[in-house]
Amino acid sequence: MTDAEVDAKVRELLGKMSIEEKVGQMTQINLNVVLKGGYNNMDGTIDPEALRKALVDYKVGSLLNAINHAYSVEKWHQIITAIQDVATKQTPNKIPVLYGIDAIHGVTFTSNSTLFPQNIGIGATRNVELSRLAGEITAKETRASGIRWNFAPVLDVGRQPLWPRFPETYGEDVYLVTQLGVASIIGMEGTDKNLNRVDRVASCMKHYIGYSLPLSGKDRTPSYIPERVLREYFLPPFTAAVKAGSSTIMINSSEINGVPVHASKYLLTDVLRGELGFKGLAVSDWEDVIRLHTKHKIAQTPKEAVKLAVNAGIDMSMVPHDYSFFEYLVELVKEGAVSQARIDEAVGRILALKFRTGLFINAYPEKDATKNFGLAEYKTAALEAARESITLLKNNDNILPLAKGKKVLVTGPAAKSITALNGSWSYTWQGNEAKYYPDTTAYIFNAIKAKNTGGTTLYAKGSEFDKEADAKKAVELAKSVDYVVVCIGEDAYAESPGVIDELDLPEAQQKLVASLYEAGKPVVIVLVEGRPRIIRKIEGGAKGIINAYIPGSQGHNAIAEVLFGDVNPSGKLPFSYPRFSGDIIPYDHKYSDRVTELAPGQMGENGYKPQWPFGYGLSYTKFEYSNLKVSSPTLKGNGSIKVTVDVKNAGSKAGKEAVELYTRDHFASITPSWERLRKFKKISLAPGQTQTVEFELNKSDLAFVGMDDKTFITEPGAFDVIIGGQKASFNYED
Amino acid sequence: MTDAEVDAKVRELLGKMSIEEKVGQMTQINLNVVLKGGYNNMDGTIDPEALRKALVDYKVGSLLNAINHAYSVEKWHQIITAIQDVATKQTPNKIPVLYGIDAIHGVTFTSNSTLFPQNIGIGATRNVELSRLAGEITAKETRASGIRWNFAPVLDVGRQPLWPRFPETYGEDVYLVTQLGVASIIGMEGTDKNLNRVDRVASCMKHYIGYSLPLSGKDRTPSYIPERVLREYFLPPFTAAVKAGSSTIMINSSEINGVPVHASKYLLTDVLRGELGFKGLAVSDWEDVIRLHTKHKIAQTPKEAVKLAVNAGIDMSMVPHDYSFFEYLVELVKEGAVSQARIDEAVGRILALKFRTGLFINAYPEKDATKNFGLAEYKTAALEAARESITLLKNNDNILPLAKGKKVLVTGPAAKSITALNGSWSYTWQGNEAKYYPDTTAYIFNAIKAKNTGGTTLYAKGSEFDKEADAKKAVELAKSVDYVVVCIGEDAYAESPGVIDELDLPEAQQKLVASLYEAGKPVVIVLVEGRPRIIRKIEGGAKGIINAYIPGSQGHNAIAEVLFGDVNPSGKLPFSYPRFSGDIIPYDHKYSDRVTELAPGQMGENGYKPQWPFGYGLSYTKFEYSNLKVSSPTLKGNGSIKVTVDVKNAGSKAGKEAVELYTRDHFASITPSWERLRKFKKISLAPGQTQTVEFELNKSDLAFVGMDDKTFITEPGAFDVIIGGQKASFNYED
Repeated sequence: MTDAEVDAKVRELLGKMSIEEKVGQMTQINLNVVLKGGYNNMDGTIDPEALRKALVDYKVGSLLNAINHAYSVEKWHQIITAIQDVATKQTPNKIPVLYGIDAIHGVTFTSNSTLFPQNIGIGATRNVELSRLAGEITAKETRASGIRWNFAPVLDVGRQPLWPRFPETYGEDVYLVTQLGVASIIGMEGTDKNLNRVDRVASCMKHYIGYSLPLSGKDRTPSYIPERVLREYFLPPFTAAVKAGSSTIMINSSEINGVPVHASKYLLTDVLRGELGFKGLAVSDWEDVIRLHTKHKIAQTPKEAVKLAVNAGIDMSMVPHDYSFFEYLVELVKEGAVSQARIDEAVGRILALKFRTGLFINAYPEKDATKNFGLAEYKTAALEAARESITLLKNNDNILPLAKGKKVLVTGPAAKSITALNGSWSYTWQGNEAKYYPDTTAYIFNAIKAKNTGGTTLYAKGSEFDKEADAKKAVELAKSVDYVVVCIGEDAYAESPGVIDELDLPEAQQKLVASLYEAGKPVVIVLVEGRPRIIRKIEGGAKGIINAYIPGSQGHNAIAEVLFGDVNPSGKLPFSYPRFSGDIIPYDHKYSDRVTELAPGQMGENGYKPQWPFGYGLSYTKFEYSNLKVSSPTLKGNGSIKVTVDVKNAGSKAGKEAVELYTRDHFASITPSWERLRKFKKISLAPGQTQTVEFELNKSDLAFVGMDDKTFITEPGAFDVIIGGQKASFNYED
Repeated sequence: MTDAEVDAKVRELLGKMSIEEKVGQMTQINLNVVLKGGYNNMDGTIDPEALRKALVDYKVGSLLNAINHAYSVEKWHQIITAIQDVATKQTPNKIPVLYGIDAIHGVTFTSNSTLFPQNIGIGATRNVELSRLAGEITAKETRASGIRWNFAPVLDVGRQPLWPRFPETYGEDVYLVTQLGVASIIGMEGTDKNLNRVDRVASCMKHYIGYSLPLSGKDRTPSYIPERVLREYFLPPFTAAVKAGSSTIMINSSEINGVPVHASKYLLTDVLRGELGFKGLAVSDWEDVIRLHTKHKIAQTPKEAVKLAVNAGIDMSMVPHDYSFFEYLVELVKEGAVSQARIDEAVGRILALKFRTGLFINAYPEKDATKNFGLAEYKTAALEAARESITLLKNNDNILPLAKGKKVLVTGPAAKSITALNGSWSYTWQGNEAKYYPDTTAYIFNAIKAKNTGGTTLYAKGSEFDKEADAKKAVELAKSVDYVVVCIGEDAYAESPGVIDELDLPEAQQKLVASLYEAGKPVVIVLVEGRPRIIRKIEGGAKGIINAYIPGSQGHNAIAEVLFGDVNPSGKLPFSYPRFSGDIIPYDHKYSDRVTELAPGQMGENGYKPQWPFGYGLSYTKFEYSNLKVSSPTLKGNGSIKVTVDVKNAGSKAGKEAVELYTRDHFASITPSWERLRKFKKISLAPGQTQTVEFELNKSDLAFVGMDDKTFITEPGAFDVIIGGQKASFNYED
């Protein structure tokens, strides 16, 4: 259907609908409301009376998620079928239900789905195509489950590492987040935006906007973001995603500068619609309309909360437990406190998406879609993503790769943890119940053991994630082996339950590692963590360190492959890995952040001193950069210049390398960043091979938000371009 | 002189001055530029040729400070006399030099001056009169040294505890900072603003604005402060101080949202002059004009930096090493890039202050002023301030006060540290050279020993501040005593050298305390620190804990008096003392900061969980609050209501109590704070005595910065008033 055809259909349908039907369309409830036993339901059995009440009495237009655990594809088909049966047969206008789900790094709530690395790992791959592919496979398995709307990708920029949803971000850099986020959207919606196809789902840009910078680091707590910063570091992924055609958007649960985003007409209407030109559906996050009253305290009553949110620009409320939103909104419309036009606008967007996703043609699970579930190639894709994410942070004396056939102790709380490898949104919300995973033994120890042919692979837990366990046994075993591989980090968590009060790695794990050093054998640390937990005190003793992030269903295999050299690691840190809890400085800091001053006139430049910087990552081979060239000393107006650099694999192993182009603005009316990532490209080089990598730069690549707090501008002047330690300069002229 | 008379004099003088003379007036250099040997000079000997060059060739109008150490009053008189001799005899218009100095908690750079607690301790006293008195005494001793301009008080609100100038703030609450800051200004300038008096100096509001919230916690690094936050939490102390008549203002060295404040016409002219109506002199901070080029990178050249700063509203540049500012500015004026009017405005403000401080009548050190140096009563005032600042944080089993005549071990790095007790700006910039202190043995151990009559007082260092020392010996001694008093915290630091990378107390000190516990004797911790260093891991084992902050020259005595019960402690924390490095939440957080959410529907309210909350502080007696009453259930329009509460000393010791009134806005258009301190009063009660404390509230006490990011508004609705655990409610009506 063309947009015009959709518009016509929507207008026609709107003309037939009552106020109640319209408001029902704007109401989204959680699946459990229509299940037998409600929130205690574990088997997905529909309560027909509750379902009738929801769809017929309250005319609900959308449902979401499964709270307790994943269902089989078949169970999903039963559920969706039961729902659409009522929606399309027992309601006056037979409007199908739009089902939405959190399929965050793969299809969370369908058993046996393919789980990819969390986005923070995708950020480390610097591989746009892998992000697209993960989006595509997730779309296929979601649609195969009978669902056509995915609440992904997360476009929040991860600049607060305490935040428990940091692992769901692509990292601290706005350009990286933009590129990988847009790729994921294209993976889900294609470039033609034909959502009627059985391999597509509507994507959802989230969480608009400023969610990822809570001052205290806690989930859903206040952000304080100056307008210029909001537009420089947080808005661009949404701008690009709207342009790429993402169909829906979900709103930040929290507040910016004292204004809850769910009540911000400025952000939801003036900026999102007026400036970004977004035409799609804006859905609230979980219970966030009523929370304008209960939590943010800006609405004197729950009804006032509904009025504020809808008038600000919320099209659909993820209520999700009851029908209060429906009742208040019907009253408000009848009282004239919310206009019919606002309602028609919101409902029009919802209906348009229902038309576009083909629900009016066939609201039921599609056979052709089902064929796309669980293909063997998905596993390969998940494995490849995990492989490319793993980041080699330390390799003293080339301890890595390990020789096979030796005696290895695998220890630490992540060594036998399937949940740590997969993290949040893995068959349950928290991802922390191993029993729902398809293979509960897909963990690091087993993968290492399988790979260590002819050798001995020992195990001791050594420590829990948060408290001491049998470190003694681990140390005892360590004395007898050739290598110790200690797997540490974080167990699975999502949202508020993942709140932490300090970034330091829990002491029990630090103690384990410190005591392993006493055994005198070479120790390799495998970090399995979504946030950069501080390990300053134990870093020094390790011979090798790899960061696996939260690598997903094939993470165990990828880790073993990297440890034994079957895969050459190519991940690069998507964040600055802090050395100290009180020293969190992003790579794109200002020059004054670098300045240290011990006495008058004694200035230094070592203010940025993370454990490892953004973009850091070693390889088993050696890449040499040379011959950086800029096609012209001057970039003029709307023209462009080419930047080329030769990258040589000067080592003896094939390897992949993320080539990153940074720029540095010498002077600007707003204090310029020390450097900014402007382009990146992942390449593959055989030993001895050299490739000339080319980038194009234009004025928009050098732009920043100017003094008016709004407009991206590019000022004439000198710029450096920096790639792989090479530096060249050019001038921009108006 | 009246303002009109000053104006007339200024106009007359301006009419006679060349461009060079005017620009010279705007130039401030450091004393060392005119000393023999320059920055290496240690004895304050003037280099006559350098002085002539400064005052005659470059027509410099102001000098400041002494870099290396304090001088005697007599030496200062020699220096000032030599300077004024040249200024008033060898220059065409005989304009005296305005000498400015950092007399931060007493007269830093004069030997034997009286040092008060750092402002953070003054914040704990909740005693406005003590702040005024400290200001008054500082003014007297400054003027006695021949100097009439003090770069104090600090009006920055301390909301970033990592910041090395946090101790120079009055704490995290804007109302507290405002009250104590204004009192200090009145102490220095009086209420009649007659700066010709020999007991007065011009004060300097600093650092305008936003200096105290560096994102990374480092000194002079970028702040990111939304406009509403700037006006709600950082601007009010300056607004009130301008109203109170402070004569000068110093500018924040750093940037807010990418705009260095030294180049912000908006902040320096539109807000400061236009909105606040400030008429006085705006001086840059150290080298900050040129740093617009060298550090902030917004000026392409040093000359451009001068143009930006002067046109933005800087009246005087603390250059301070050379004459580049003079030379560039003369060129800029001649080129028309800086207007004559701007120059006349700036110079007019400088000259006005010179007239107002009586320099044109007598530029030399005044005999009558000298009499005001070092009076015995100043020591009493410093002692009283230290006493009232000390905050009792823990007192299990009433371990405190200690019985005299017992065997006590005094240990820890602060036990014999005069520098830790006085901190920054104590006879040197860093305050860390004991040899310049008048009494190098005025430390805690000696005071305890003197107080512990009939007992035995042992000492072992136990630990350095930053590295382990003889903990073993301390633990050995601990086994033999009745009490262990361990004095831990921070040694002296100022500005950038005080940068830390984590808030946790250094490990060596934590280890010392932990091992002292093993001796099995009751341990009392004395915290000597300007920042709340995290002590979660060692807090549990202590029987008693007092926080002495940085108590100044009489701190050792005050600590001993409190420990042995000669003084009943009455300090209250002026900040939230964090429990975890990743959990920094101010007391006036939003309700959503309190919300914890472990599963859907499972909401808690324990998000604010500091080690000790803002306002916390125990006493050796017991204060009971009752009978909280509001004079009317409704506060109408511009009226007021009275709030009364009965406070009873229900214990057996006389004591002081800071009675604090907080309000809570139930709902507001900008998410309201959980609570806000609106009034406080320090009272003194004999055992058994009850006092009814009365406060008045009006609409401005309930105001907040509204949606326009600018205007303070009070919205109709319900408010709670909370005093000492009592709660009452009232409504505000327009």
